[in-house]
Amino acid sequence: MSGKKKIGLFGLGCVGQGFYSLLTQANANLEIKKIVVKNPNKQRSVDQSLLSVSPEDILNDPEIDIVVELIDDSKFAFELLKKSLEKKKPLVTANKKMLAEHLEEIFWLQKRYNTPVLYEGAVCGSIPIIRNLEKHYAFDELHRVEGIFNGSTNYILTKMIEEKKDFASVLAEAQRLGFAESDPTLDVKGFDPKFKLAITMAHAFGIFIHPNQIVNIGVDKITEHDIRYARQQGCTIKLIAKAERVGDQIVGFVAPQFVPLESSLANIKNEYNAVSVTGASTGLQFLAGKGAGSLPTGLVVLSDVVAISQGDLYSYEKVRHADNLSFANEGLINICVSFREGEGIRPADFVEFIGGYQAGAFQSLNGWVSLKKLSNWSDRDSLSIIFNTGVNYKTTRSEKKQELTLV
Amino acid sequence: MSGKKKIGLFGLGCVGQGFYSLLTQANANLEIKKIVVKNPNKQRSVDQSLLSVSPEDILNDPEIDIVVELIDDSKFAFELLKKSLEKKKPLVTANKKMLAEHLEEIFWLQKRYNTPVLYEGAVCGSIPIIRNLEKHYAFDELHRVEGIFNGSTNYILTKMIEEKKDFASVLAEAQRLGFAESDPTLDVKGFDPKFKLAITMAHAFGIFIHPNQIVNIGVDKITEHDIRYARQQGCTIKLIAKAERVGDQIVGFVAPQFVPLESSLANIKNEYNAVSVTGASTGLQFLAGKGAGSLPTGLVVLSDVVAISQGDLYSYEKVRHADNLSFANEGLINICVSFREGEGIRPADFVEFIGGYQAGAFQSLNGWVSLKKLSNWSDRDSLSIIFNTGVNYKTTRSEKKQELTLV
Repeated sequence: MSGKKKIGLFGLGCVGQGFYSLLTQANANLEIKKIVVKNPNKQRSVDQSLLSVSPEDILNDPEIDIVVELIDDSKFAFELLKKSLEKKKPLVTANKKMLAEHLEEIFWLQKRYNTPVLYEGAVCGSIPIIRNLEKHYAFDELHRVEGIFNGSTNYILTKMIEEKKDFASVLAEAQRLGFAESDPTLDVKGFDPKFKLAITMAHAFGIFIHPNQIVNIGVDKITEHDIRYARQQGCTIKLIAKAERVGDQIVGFVAPQFVPLESSLANIKNEYNAVSVTGASTGLQFLAGKGAGSLPTGLVVLSDVVAISQGDLYSYEKVRHADNLSFANEGLINICVSFREGEGIRPADFVEFIGGYQAGAFQSLNGWVSLKKLSNWSDRDSLSIIFNTGVNYKTTRSEKKQELTLV
Repeated sequence: MSGKKKIGLFGLGCVGQGFYSLLTQANANLEIKKIVVKNPNKQRSVDQSLLSVSPEDILNDPEIDIVVELIDDSKFAFELLKKSLEKKKPLVTANKKMLAEHLEEIFWLQKRYNTPVLYEGAVCGSIPIIRNLEKHYAFDELHRVEGIFNGSTNYILTKMIEEKKDFASVLAEAQRLGFAESDPTLDVKGFDPKFKLAITMAHAFGIFIHPNQIVNIGVDKITEHDIRYARQQGCTIKLIAKAERVGDQIVGFVAPQFVPLESSLANIKNEYNAVSVTGASTGLQFLAGKGAGSLPTGLVVLSDVVAISQGDLYSYEKVRHADNLSFANEGLINICVSFREGEGIRPADFVEFIGGYQAGAFQSLNGWVSLKKLSNWSDRDSLSIIFNTGVNYKTTRSEKKQELTLV
């Protein structure tokens, strides 16, 4: 038996500490040789002799076999990734922003340096979605991947709906309890699940889409009025990330959606995440689990480190067969837009207007709008936009309707 | 690039044909060199020149790299497995009975010949449970694995409950539609899910338990009376396979259980299967998908073949740390037993009697019985036994109650 594989760890935040404690308990033929942190004087329950502030102590140490990157700063994380691969050190990361913004380059860097990167922890916390897309669904033609990709907003929506509280007070409570970041923008405006969706799309459909190309609508404008309207339709509201094949196009969004109460996604509450995968051969599959957390995500990082130490790598099978696929940048979306009187939204703004109603000072209008209009409206602070349930996308080219039903 | 890996396939039944058609479409660097079948004259849409009736055409062909065994006969399947490994040919199988009955020996055979066996298709059809137990939960201490492990009986129970039909007529209909075997014994009496549970326990807890040691109670004695009683409690009835750690013991059963309507398992209907996994670090995870079928299971077999061609193998991580664990062969179970008057079951038969009621000629009694009594009762054709929901097992040693709640 050869000696233990040596690991260099960047970052000792929430996930880093979970990973550290699980690794030191596990009998996994792995050991941490160095931990690089920003501030070495912070109180931490780790062996102090492992700590350093110099990245070179990991990158230039020929004894270190594997790099684990669990820092916040996505720009610096990408620099670390490039340097690790240059040094032929396999890397495990959970940095969804860095991955989403550079995934195509990371795909090529892995080939160029013949050195793998694994990143299960970047998408849906504890749920093994990337590994299963890679290993289990690699040879199935997938129709759709959708789910609840962000735990903080799912917690917030659950509390808003079940305890009839407004967004601001639930957010404040979630921040107090540590379920939401002190700067919640990435979560509540749907950027975090968008990064995860972009990563997922590469493994599900083989296309690399910069997150800037994907519309994201958050949960921060949802009001009691919307929740009442959902209830009247037998629905709840969930922040849904979804990507779907429509002909030779891939459609992808992050947006709140009315979800029928009897669907599996409606029952995913609080900090839980879920993903449903629909494929030609596999049919419908559903995975659910904790979306974040020190130990759940730390365990996933540990699984990746064990896998990478055994020579595992992503084959990106779908990328080889995706030449004919493109990302849809036009089309019509079936939405409900709600606002206080005087916002100037009119039925004529819709390509196809379905109907609307008024309750007190609130108005809701339903219908099909162009992606461009949706994108403009999503920037307006005074509009609450929720995707309608059922068929909610059609291409303007073909007018072919595709069902986006939830399980 | 080296040439394509060559496959020898035993069996061209439902799963074999699904595997064959997916492999021939997939761009997977694999090709089928020989297919051994019992009857070469049957009408089949495969290249006739591939067919043979002689196992030696696969086993003795040095060009064949991988053996795929998809035959019914579990005894002959085990012979094929041993011969394949002797010849250093990695093997993929979906034969749950063969695996369950010989898993410990298969574990050692893989070591002895340094040649792997993969068998994702043997457990819960399309759901990637073995791979995830191996790769994702390998370093988590699991508390519990439970789920719906058999599609035929889930279909039958769904129809009995939703369409208010009796067992015999639903079974006949399921057989007509091909959802149940012509000899349904293995399914309806709970043997098939028991085989799957035994395999799952090796990967979840690291213990090899012969299926003969596991109590299995089927769905064939469930009546309209039981279904009405379930409904009154806000429950449905599901055939649940479960294994749980209680101290240093593993408890495992297959039995119908009252399942609260709001639980995730209650919503798994018809031919779908589901597994929930609870671990110390990962928390609760839930996976659902089709439990059987030519393409869903064929796809899983193809994924295993691709994995094994890349050198993948099961590490059986848990087996290395299971020395202190034993399978519980005594304890008390909280059940509801229902019967027509005159069966001679009395409150005194229970170690702890909880209560009962009578409806027409039917009687139901609830309480804690010994495993031994349960096992005796399970052999009687006139008794319908259903596990009560919530805490339903306690060791007689410690009297410590352990919750067996469903998600």
